[in-house]
Amino acid sequence: MILLTPGPVQTAPQTRAAMAQDIAPWDNDFRAVYARIRERVLALAGGVPGEHACLPLQGAGHFIVEAAIRSLVPAGGAIIVPMNGAYAERVLLLARGAGRVAHAWPVPDTRGVTAEDVAAAFAAHPEASHFATVYSETGAGIVNRPEIIGPVLRALGKRLILDAVSAFGALPFSMEDHPECDALVFTSNKCIEGLPGIAFCVARVHALEQGRAGSWSLDLWEILNIALKSGWGSFRFTPPVQALAAFNVALDLFEAEGGQPARLARYRENMRILYEGALKLGLRPYVDQAEQGPIIVTLHQPPGFDLQGFVDALKARGVLISNFYTTKTPSIRIGCIGAISNAEMTRAVAIMGEVLASTAQAA
Amino acid sequence: MILLTPGPVQTAPQTRAAMAQDIAPWDNDFRAVYARIRERVLALAGGVPGEHACLPLQGAGHFIVEAAIRSLVPAGGAIIVPMNGAYAERVLLLARGAGRVAHAWPVPDTRGVTAEDVAAAFAAHPEASHFATVYSETGAGIVNRPEIIGPVLRALGKRLILDAVSAFGALPFSMEDHPECDALVFTSNKCIEGLPGIAFCVARVHALEQGRAGSWSLDLWEILNIALKSGWGSFRFTPPVQALAAFNVALDLFEAEGGQPARLARYRENMRILYEGALKLGLRPYVDQAEQGPIIVTLHQPPGFDLQGFVDALKARGVLISNFYTTKTPSIRIGCIGAISNAEMTRAVAIMGEVLASTAQAA
Repeated sequence: MILLTPGPVQTAPQTRAAMAQDIAPWDNDFRAVYARIRERVLALAGGVPGEHACLPLQGAGHFIVEAAIRSLVPAGGAIIVPMNGAYAERVLLLARGAGRVAHAWPVPDTRGVTAEDVAAAFAAHPEASHFATVYSETGAGIVNRPEIIGPVLRALGKRLILDAVSAFGALPFSMEDHPECDALVFTSNKCIEGLPGIAFCVARVHALEQGRAGSWSLDLWEILNIALKSGWGSFRFTPPVQALAAFNVALDLFEAEGGQPARLARYRENMRILYEGALKLGLRPYVDQAEQGPIIVTLHQPPGFDLQGFVDALKARGVLISNFYTTKTPSIRIGCIGAISNAEMTRAVAIMGEVLASTAQAA
Repeated sequence: MILLTPGPVQTAPQTRAAMAQDIAPWDNDFRAVYARIRERVLALAGGVPGEHACLPLQGAGHFIVEAAIRSLVPAGGAIIVPMNGAYAERVLLLARGAGRVAHAWPVPDTRGVTAEDVAAAFAAHPEASHFATVYSETGAGIVNRPEIIGPVLRALGKRLILDAVSAFGALPFSMEDHPECDALVFTSNKCIEGLPGIAFCVARVHALEQGRAGSWSLDLWEILNIALKSGWGSFRFTPPVQALAAFNVALDLFEAEGGQPARLARYRENMRILYEGALKLGLRPYVDQAEQGPIIVTLHQPPGFDLQGFVDALKARGVLISNFYTTKTPSIRIGCIGAISNAEMTRAVAIMGEVLASTAQAA
C-alpha cells in the first residue's frame, strides 16, 4: 500500500521496525538517544543552544500548538491568526479555548499571507503580541512564507508562532535567521517521516515564563526547566518511547537523503507529477500553480463525484488517500510527502487515471 | 531483557509487532478497529453504553488526569486529594495548574485511604465536589480501595475521579457498581500490557459539560461530542495509531489469559515472589504486607546503597528496574506487571540475590 496523505505518512521499513521494541524511557541508554534527538532537532531548526531549546510534548500537533500559545501569550493576551485554511481555524479554536484573544484575519484559502495582510492585521489589532500562522496549510495546500511575514513582524516589533507541523524538514526555516520567532512547532509523523505520538517545539528560551501556561500538562516553561535541572535526556511524564526511537531512525534517513534540500526536492517533484498528472486527467487543482505548496495537492471534486468510492477503488489498487476534505468546497486531498519515491507517485497517478476511466465507463 | 517496571511495561512479542506498520487513522478499516477498542474498554470498565463513554486522549496519563479534572470540575471548583504518594502529588499539581482548588489531605504513603479519611476530609472541606485519588499508587506500592471510598462518597453525595493508570485491567472496578464515579482514567502501557501513547477516560456522560474544560486539547466533552456526531471510530486530532493497533492485540491477549481475575492472579504471585524473596535477601519492604498492592514493590535502600550501580549490575544480567524512586525516603522500585511470568520473576529475584552477594563480597 502506498499512503498518499499529509500525515501520518508512509515510513521507511527501518523506521517503523524501530517501533517494535520495549524501551524504558529513564534507562541511561535511552536518555542518551533522547538527548541526541533534541540536539539534532535544535540544529535542524537553526536554533542556537542556550538561546533556543527543543521542547518535546507527548500527543498530537494540536497539543503543542496550544502549549506554545499558552506558554508565550499571557491569559487575556491577544494574537492574530490569518484564516487561510482548516488548520488556521484550529489555531484559533485552541487559542480561544485557552482563554487568549484570537483575532481571525480574513485571507482566501487559495493563497499565502502577504506582507500587506500582516501590516493591515496589526493596524486593526495593535494590541496583539503574536502572529500565529500555519507554514504549510494542509487545508488546501498553500504555504504561508516566513520570509514574507518575518520582516513585517520585525519592523512592527511583533512575534511569530509558526505552526510548521506539515512543513518542518521539507520547507526551509532557521530560528537564527528569524529573531521574531518565539516558537516553531511540528510533529514526528510528517516531513521527517517518523510515526505519530510526539510533538516538538523549538522555542526562544527567554520568551517562556513560569506560571503563564495555566496548564501543567501543556507548560513549555516546565519542560524547559526540567531539562535544565535534570538534563536533556530527562522526561516529564511517560513519553511514547517507541515513536521517539523510530524518529531517531527517521532522522538518520533524513540526513542520509541529504537533509532538508533533498527532501524538499523529492516532495516538489512528487507534487509536480501529481499536479500535472491531475490536469492531464481532467481534474482541476484547488490552488493555482504559483501558490501550490509541495506538501499536499487538493483537487476540485468533479460534479457528482463519489469520494469514498474513489478512495475505495484506489485502495483496492494499492493507493490510499484521504476519505475526507478540509477545503471550503468539496475536494480530493492527496499528500506528496512521506517515504514515497517519484516513481511511486508516477505509478499512483496512473492508477488514479485507471480508476477515473473505469468509473466513467461504468457511468 | 526482563523489564520490571510499573510501566511502560514488558509487552508480548505479538503486541509490539503490531507497532511496526503504517496506518491511516481515518481509513475505514482502522475506524472499525478503533470503535471496537472503545467498546471493549467500556465493557472492561463495567460501563453502561449511553450512560458511560470511552474517551481516548493522545499523550501521557497526566494529560488524561488533567482532562478529567478540567472537564468535570468547573474553574474555581474544589477537589480533595489524599496525599499518600508521588502520583497524588501530581494530581494536586495538575488540578491547581488548571485553576481548580485542590485540598491536600494528609495520609501516610504506607497505607491506603480509610473511610475515616474520606469523611474527615469532606468535613474539613465541605465545598469540595470531587475526591480524586490514585487507585494503585506506584509511589510506594499501596492501593486506595474504591470499595472503601465509594460508600462514603455516596453517603455524602460527593463524586469520584479515579486515577487507575497503574490499576486498570488488574485491580477490579466497575463503573456500574460505582455510581459515585464520574471518571476512571488509565493508559495503554500498564496492566493491559500495551505500549505508550494513548490514554483513556471512561466517563459518566451526563457529568460532562460544554465549555467547562478551559482547554480545547484537554476537553473530554468535545471528544464525546465528536464521537456522538461522527461515530466511535472517529478521531479528534491525529492519534498514535500504532499504539492503538498494539493495544488492540494486547486486549486480545488479555482476554485469552482470562481477563482481569487471571491478570491480577499472575501479578499477585509476581508480587509475592518478589516481596518474600526480598525479605529472604535481607531487604526491608517499604510497605507492610497487609497494605502491599500487586503492581509495584518498593524496598528500603540499605545504608550506603548505590542505586545506579545496582541497576547497572542487574541490567548486565538481563533485568531492568527503575533507576529512580518516588518514595519519601530512598527506595528500590520494582514492578510486578507487564508480560512477566512467575518463573521470570523467580529468576529475576535470584539475579538480585547474585548481585547483592557480589556487591557484599566486593565491599
